[in-house]
Amino acid sequence: MVPKLIAHHQPAQPGLSADQTSTYSRLDQWLLEKIYQSAGRPAIRLALVNGPAVSPENSPPIATIRFRNRKTLFGLILDPDSGFGDAYSDGRITVEGDLVAALEEFHRTTPPFDSQNWYTRAVSRCLGFAQRNSLRGAHSNIHRHYDLSNDFFRLWLDPQLSYSCAYFPSASMTIEEAQAAKMDYICRKLNLQPGERVVDVGSGWGALALHMARHYGVTVRGYSISREQVVWARRRAQELGLDQRIEFIQDDYRSISGKYDAFVSVGMLEHVGPEHYGQMGRVIHRLLEGSGRGLLQVIGRNQPRPFSNWVHKHIFPGAYAPSLRQVMDIFEPWNFSILDVENLRLHYARTLQCWLERFEDAASIVSAQFGPKFVNTWRLYLAGSIAGFRAGALQLFQVVFARGNYRALHPTRAHLYSDEGQKEHAAVAVV
Amino acid sequence: MVPKLIAHHQPAQPGLSADQTSTYSRLDQWLLEKIYQSAGRPAIRLALVNGPAVSPENSPPIATIRFRNRKTLFGLILDPDSGFGDAYSDGRITVEGDLVAALEEFHRTTPPFDSQNWYTRAVSRCLGFAQRNSLRGAHSNIHRHYDLSNDFFRLWLDPQLSYSCAYFPSASMTIEEAQAAKMDYICRKLNLQPGERVVDVGSGWGALALHMARHYGVTVRGYSISREQVVWARRRAQELGLDQRIEFIQDDYRSISGKYDAFVSVGMLEHVGPEHYGQMGRVIHRLLEGSGRGLLQVIGRNQPRPFSNWVHKHIFPGAYAPSLRQVMDIFEPWNFSILDVENLRLHYARTLQCWLERFEDAASIVSAQFGPKFVNTWRLYLAGSIAGFRAGALQLFQVVFARGNYRALHPTRAHLYSDEGQKEHAAVAVV
Repeated sequence: MVPKLIAHHQPAQPGLSADQTSTYSRLDQWLLEKIYQSAGRPAIRLALVNGPAVSPENSPPIATIRFRNRKTLFGLILDPDSGFGDAYSDGRITVEGDLVAALEEFHRTTPPFDSQNWYTRAVSRCLGFAQRNSLRGAHSNIHRHYDLSNDFFRLWLDPQLSYSCAYFPSASMTIEEAQAAKMDYICRKLNLQPGERVVDVGSGWGALALHMARHYGVTVRGYSISREQVVWARRRAQELGLDQRIEFIQDDYRSISGKYDAFVSVGMLEHVGPEHYGQMGRVIHRLLEGSGRGLLQVIGRNQPRPFSNWVHKHIFPGAYAPSLRQVMDIFEPWNFSILDVENLRLHYARTLQCWLERFEDAASIVSAQFGPKFVNTWRLYLAGSIAGFRAGALQLFQVVFARGNYRALHPTRAHLYSDEGQKEHAAVAVV
Repeated sequence: MVPKLIAHHQPAQPGLSADQTSTYSRLDQWLLEKIYQSAGRPAIRLALVNGPAVSPENSPPIATIRFRNRKTLFGLILDPDSGFGDAYSDGRITVEGDLVAALEEFHRTTPPFDSQNWYTRAVSRCLGFAQRNSLRGAHSNIHRHYDLSNDFFRLWLDPQLSYSCAYFPSASMTIEEAQAAKMDYICRKLNLQPGERVVDVGSGWGALALHMARHYGVTVRGYSISREQVVWARRRAQELGLDQRIEFIQDDYRSISGKYDAFVSVGMLEHVGPEHYGQMGRVIHRLLEGSGRGLLQVIGRNQPRPFSNWVHKHIFPGAYAPSLRQVMDIFEPWNFSILDVENLRLHYARTLQCWLERFEDAASIVSAQFGPKFVNTWRLYLAGSIAGFRAGALQLFQVVFARGNYRALHPTRAHLYSDEGQKEHAAVAVV
């Protein structure tokens, strides 16, 4: 499969002879071809604005990616990892066609570790050090993402601000319904009983803690190191008259005290870092009663691999998605039993799709507050995540664990699917 | 909690003075106390035949363990790992009361690694070398257990000779129904489609392969290195007219060839050994089509820990039950996605309970063929396994995995529980 090189009519450039123009044009074409090869020859057309293009030979292109100038091509070759994202944010790269489908195609054709040249690795190491999740570092990393402003997240999340993978037992559910279904699903998996004490580590804006206290009669302590989140969650608890049964505390997971019947952590382990999993295990061991159990929901990978430098720089400083083997480093030293692992990656793709749609609807508002570059950055993050979950580059693990002597084991998992709310299990579109 | 020392009336021993008798009696009591302490002070009474005893102080004893003589006490102290089993097999230890409940109590009170003194560790290393799972070693290890004789296994397994954990969605199921339910459950988890090719690695007496070909319209190749099993399975396939769609081959997993849509292995990884998991992963990678998937059912642990020397010597030479982290060593190098992990340990406890009941019914027949020592050995193995699964010392993992780009993902797991056969989900007694 050799890319078909489409000869574009090249407008003469002022101050350049025809020969010079032709030399530059050949260079551009060579650069495009090199990028196309490195990307594993995707079904995507690559083109320079008013310049040459490379098109897939055997299939119609899913989309056209247009580069503003030669410098952008060089930037991408030097740093494939951040070059694309940086240029997309700046508007030096535009995508004509379905952005998500184009990014999914790249996931399918690009060998996973090919984007790791010496430059990328060096930047990755520097970022790793600068964004390490020490007590102070974690605080700053979390602040940079989650304290952007509650108003910003309210524009595109559901009204309860659930900022993690929802659960769509029925394809027709709205994001609000699917977030409620997710919270119920977690409570059922945890087998919560009225009066029990739950610790919610990384409680965000409080939706899960509120749901548990409201519908399952438990008392909850929620921990977050985002000030904006804790203030919001406390106000919501007061509004709902649940402040006697819920406490939201602004503190690091390493400082949590008390004893609990159940541990829950949704979308927080991504900010812990694999070098701290031993510590995380020790915390869970310290917090859980002798017969306790817990649920951990985390974005994962099939193999250990860091997020891109671009994600670390612009979206989630210090974040890491572990493989399931790495997750076991939390549980194995303390003799916890793994009872259930479910991979819900297509549910996260759908969740993100809902968010992206709302984000696009609010793009002009976001742009007015944060500028057009910010809009492009977040659009790429949301679309890229959908693509990653669809293509299987990202996984979403729900892990249920318990003390070795936990006695209230359900004989089967049928009870998770038996009540009316779960009866509709029409397919979420399989991608 | 000091054990209450019960003063037994001690019959005078001929040839010993009263003083000597008293000295020996004090020694026996000291030995009993030492054993009682090492076992973590269980709610079990320990007694010497016609000698002193140690009883739990705060609760009535679950059972009485009676030692024939002082030599048996010494044997247990020197080698707690094999000493108990060896003496039980010989009849030098008898258990008065519920054997399973007594063994379960020991699981609860004995610290997991306490039975590993220098002697046990040395024996463990020698056995590890002698029973290594090389091509030749695996053949001999498997032969020793599975080729005992088909007639023996027919005495206490179900008529199809399913020799692995069954699935009891309803508490009232017989072992036959539960084995069929297990096979259906596996087929549903694998999402088998008519015409697909399945490889069954460790196919035993062929029940699962036959069930798949019969009820799911697939073609199956089953591999076992037990000659007795393969001969039996081939005859069954002929009897059922399925020999065009099923092939049973006597060969090692490392020699399997071909390409398959689905991989299944039930109760076989226990015989592979963790040092060969990399090789096992390479085999699965080689056998599975680009969009294939598989299911692995294996006895596991919360933490890496070998079986006892006694199990290695008398029941399963070369066997090993991995932690979930160790199981991941198979999948991670090849970029397989883990889709689902379920822990069915209580189902194995119940399965073993059914087997033990039938085994007891047939004890006189087994004794006539293999002798009373063999009966005791197998009774202890079956009862000890029930206790291990109940107490959470043993786990049973069903792991569903797929290629990263497997497309036919079910959106939820509800379909596993939706049909009539699965509707009854009354509780299996929670132990």
